[in-house]
Parts: sequence; C-alpha cells; structure tokens
Amino acid sequence: MSAINNIPEKTIERLSEYRRTLLSCHKQGITHIFSHVLAGMHGITAVQVRRDLMLIGFSSDTKKGYDVKVLIEFINNILDSENPINIAIIGMGHLGQAITKYFNSKGLKLHIVAAFDVDEQKVGSEIEGIPCYHMEQFEDVVSQLDISIVVISSPTRVAPSLVIPIINAGIKGVLNFTSAPLNFPQGIVSQNFDITTTLEKVAYFVKEGDESNT
Amino acid sequence: MSAINNIPEKTIERLSEYRRTLLSCHKQGITHIFSHVLAGMHGITAVQVRRDLMLIGFSSDTKKGYDVKVLIEFINNILDSENPINIAIIGMGHLGQAITKYFNSKGLKLHIVAAFDVDEQKVGSEIEGIPCYHMEQFEDVVSQLDISIVVISSPTRVAPSLVIPIINAGIKGVLNFTSAPLNFPQGIVSQNFDITTTLEKVAYFVKEGDESNT
Repeated sequence: MSAINNIPEKTIERLSEYRRTLLSCHKQGITHIFSHVLAGMHGITAVQVRRDLMLIGFSSDTKKGYDVKVLIEFINNILDSENPINIAIIGMGHLGQAITKYFNSKGLKLHIVAAFDVDEQKVGSEIEGIPCYHMEQFEDVVSQLDISIVVISSPTRVAPSLVIPIINAGIKGVLNFTSAPLNFPQGIVSQNFDITTTLEKVAYFVKEGDESNT
Repeated sequence: MSAINNIPEKTIERLSEYRRTLLSCHKQGITHIFSHVLAGMHGITAVQVRRDLMLIGFSSDTKKGYDVKVLIEFINNILDSENPINIAIIGMGHLGQAITKYFNSKGLKLHIVAAFDVDEQKVGSEIEGIPCYHMEQFEDVVSQLDISIVVISSPTRVAPSLVIPIINAGIKGVLNFTSAPLNFPQGIVSQNFDITTTLEKVAYFVKEGDESNT
C-alpha cells in the first residue's frame, strides 16, 4: 500500500469519523451520499469534507454523490494496516473494562488482546473476554502477543512508573487516559486523553457563555 | 469575578493541566517552580508556559520561579465558577461508572450529582454514590438539581435520541463519549471525545512511522 504522507492529524481524525458514519449508512442500505450531507452529519462544511477527501486523493464525486462502499474501501486503505494491530490495556478497572468492551465489539482492525493489572483478583482471569496478566509479565507478554499499542487506564499516580516498562517493551503507540502528562521519546506516538481537562474546559466555556449573556 | 475573554481553547486545556501538576507539587511541599520545570513536566517549552500565563495576566515570576500556591489561586479564579457546577451522566455502564468514580474523588468544583439510564436494575439505586434516575425523569431532575452539564456515555446508537431532551432541559454543556457526532445549537458548548477516533489516529501514526523507517 502506498502511504500518503503528511496528512494532518485533524484530517486523520475526521477520516476515522467519516468512516464510522459511512459504515452506518452502508448498513442502512444507503449507496451514495453527497458531501454536504456527510458534512451536516459531522457539523462541518462541505468544503472541509471535499478538502479532506482531496488530500487522500479521492475524487470520484458523481451526480449521485460519493459511492459509500468505494469511499469506505478508500479510507480503509489509508487508515488500516495490512495486519491487525494488537493493543494492551494497562489498568483493568472500570475504565479499562469499558474501553475493552466497547472496542472489541466493533469489528475493527485494532484488537485489544491483553490486559495488565496488579490486583491479584484480576490477574490470571479473563475480563471482557481477554486475559489479564500481572504487570511484572509486561515485557514478555508484549513480545509474545506482538502488541504495539497500549492504552493506559491505571490510577493517575501509577502512570509515571509505566513509562520505562513501555519504552523497554518496544511499544510504538500510547493512549494515556490518566491525568499525568507522560512524555515519551521520539519514535513513540503518544496521545494524552484526559477527561478532567476536557470537562473543565466545557465548564469554563459554559461559565463564560453565562457571563457574556448577563 | 472579572472574566478575561478570548482565552484560546488550548490555553484553557493547559491551565487545567498546569493546575493539576501544581496541586500535586503543593502536596509535596514544593513552594516555587520555574517555568522551564513546569514546561518539562508537560512536554512543552517554557515559552509556551510563560505565554499562557501572560494571557491570563499572571506575571509574578521571581528568582525562585512561580509561587505555586499563588498560581493555583490565580488559575482557580480563571477556570472555576463561584458556585459548584452540577453534572449528570447519561448512561451508567462501565464508562459512566468509571467517569463518576474518577471524578467525584478529586475534590473539584465540578460535581457529578445524578445518573440517568433505562436499565431497571440501575434506576432507583445508588451507583458510585450518586442516584440513578430513569431517562424519562430527565427534564424534572435537571431542573430540581440545577444540572448544567451532561456527560453522554450511553451506547452510540442511543446518542442521537438524546439531543432533543438535552436541549429541552436547558443543558449548557455536553461532553459526548459516544462515536455518534452530535450537533447542538449555539449556546450549548459541546465536545466530542471519541475513543475510537483517537485510537485509530494513534494506530495510523504508528503505521506511518513503521513505513517511513523501512
């Protein structure tokens, strides 16, 4: 597959979102969709949709709009690896379980294949259909199961201690749900996804809206 | 409180993050911190930290660095409302429970005070210390408990049907964790926070990194 380089992060996010909408359209038997309809479903402009699809080299707009099935295939080729990507969850509390359940029911090319915890009640058992290992086994299991991405849903205070094991195990991508900002060396893609920050941000703009209305 | 207008969204996010780091420093007995140290803990430059703090009018940098306690108070004045903000969770599955537990243990000015679900097992009981109501009671409870923000952690297929009740109840802010992009009219602050998109994005950049290395 030829990689198209330098696609902006925001376009990648929107392609992922378009694909989910298109898959849902496809399920409902919709064969074609206009750019402005797809745009409306995402609360953005048709120009934005067309620009994103131009960036990935998709241009088969017809009088009936985009062919839903063809566009899904096209986005698959951009976003997906040829091989499934294996993911591990570190911290199998409520959040880890929610993510696993949610994710593995979707039939994506990304599979959560293992969980890690230090709770003896969890270690050695299967939770949401995947085996839970002790954190001490991290490096070995990552290598055996060919895991390349981890999701951190541990308590925040534990998160900084995970950086070294993650680097040592050769992990390539990290999605961090804790409130501890984690820094990884170049070569490891990491994304902090902090719920508190987002909720505080919403609250701030709600407050500002109130004040500007009075 | 005087509102400082037009603070960029990204600055608000970072202020929330700085505050958590500063609170943790304060707990450890650290009284002063240099901008480059604070910056390093967040993986950004000292220039960025200084620019953010300048934007909110904070400039009491001394030879010992920023006074941690004073800076926390300063950020509190920007981010927090004078009154606590009440939040409801819609969808009290694993994710809703994880968010509630995580959030209400933090001692923030934001309080999750109610949950909504349609599962008869949950309705009428207390989960993670908060009462769970049937979605039919949504408007009444929002008004009684003075709820201004909702967190949507329902199944994705349910999410679009929540838009009208949320508008009708007079909710001001929405944090949407489902994969359904939701559009609200002006006056309602909404933020989509989609786990699938973020994980697909990390996977894409991991793949691209691999391909550019080979």
